[in-house]
Amino acid sequence: MAAGRRSGRRPGKQDTRDQILSAARLAFAQHGYGGTTVRSVAASAGVDAALVYHYFGTKEKLFVAMMDAPIDPRQYVDTIVDGPVDRLAERILRTALEVWDSPAGPAAMALVRSSIAHERSARLLREFLLERAMRPIVESVETDPEMAQWRANLVGAQLIGLVTMRYLLALEPLASATPERVVELVAPNLQRYLTGELRTEARTLNT
Amino acid sequence: MAAGRRSGRRPGKQDTRDQILSAARLAFAQHGYGGTTVRSVAASAGVDAALVYHYFGTKEKLFVAMMDAPIDPRQYVDTIVDGPVDRLAERILRTALEVWDSPAGPAAMALVRSSIAHERSARLLREFLLERAMRPIVESVETDPEMAQWRANLVGAQLIGLVTMRYLLALEPLASATPERVVELVAPNLQRYLTGELRTEARTLNT
Repeated sequence: MAAGRRSGRRPGKQDTRDQILSAARLAFAQHGYGGTTVRSVAASAGVDAALVYHYFGTKEKLFVAMMDAPIDPRQYVDTIVDGPVDRLAERILRTALEVWDSPAGPAAMALVRSSIAHERSARLLREFLLERAMRPIVESVETDPEMAQWRANLVGAQLIGLVTMRYLLALEPLASATPERVVELVAPNLQRYLTGELRTEARTLNT
Repeated sequence: MAAGRRSGRRPGKQDTRDQILSAARLAFAQHGYGGTTVRSVAASAGVDAALVYHYFGTKEKLFVAMMDAPIDPRQYVDTIVDGPVDRLAERILRTALEVWDSPAGPAAMALVRSSIAHERSARLLREFLLERAMRPIVESVETDPEMAQWRANLVGAQLIGLVTMRYLLALEPLASATPERVVELVAPNLQRYLTGELRTEARTLNT
């Protein structure tokens, strides 16, 4: 034991940081992501907005910290978007499986589990995943805003279902399958949601 | 108020029924669906096995009652399976959306929500959905037992994801879409998981 050594953060600073986080939790829960400003969080924490920026950088980063999320999906977006469009689904799946199979996986699972159990947390998780991950990825391949929303919904549904089956319910053989096998099975479906001709098919089926 | 009228069930009978349900809850939680017998539930409830059959009919029905499930997915299986194989996904989706959009929907959602929040309940929900709904449907189109398991996993993932997005997280535009629109968008993907050449594609991607 290194006697006399102090841990990284000084108690006083930690208190301020926690005050801001508490205020953020309340604000995001009451007004959602869109309705919350750094200024309003700072005001209810009784600190200057500059201090919030100092500790957390941006509203998005404050939100990630408030969610106690083990990872920030945004950091993977650039890598996923960069590459051939017809293999976008493969890159999404590879990245998602890498994150969920990593040490951060169980913590992310705990967050999803507790968020799903509570209506208010579910709403925040929804905004978190949509704004931070789905929307930027889908908008890289779909210019029509209405279709982009549909695609984001469908891609999200496929990914949430996959994560639920493989990690939360731990169903076999999916739970023990190699990432490569999962990509092979799921990528064609995910790719249709990303770049498939959803409108044409819908019209054909309607008539 | 109809004074003097009694409610349908006599208190004594209700008590016995409740005793059996409590014993069933414990047994299913400890030993899972496969490891629980009507005989063992009867024994720990301190009643004759015949009484369990009298109240609940079968082990399956006891399980459904114990889960407090608003609907029994098994009752829809025959209707879903009956029809052209290449439109199986359409029939699954139509039926699922009908149930979730019905008055039983919110109760089913509450069951899923609370089950997902707790590891032990999640395990029971998994057995419930797999044994009662997925397996019999998939086995109607897939004779290879290993492939049937894969298909059940993937179909389950798609359906769970869809239900989560549309009902639990209530994402737009999916939450307000007509059942017809949802079927158009999702059925082609679900059909691939049910009857698509998953093995061939996997081999192609591997080399």
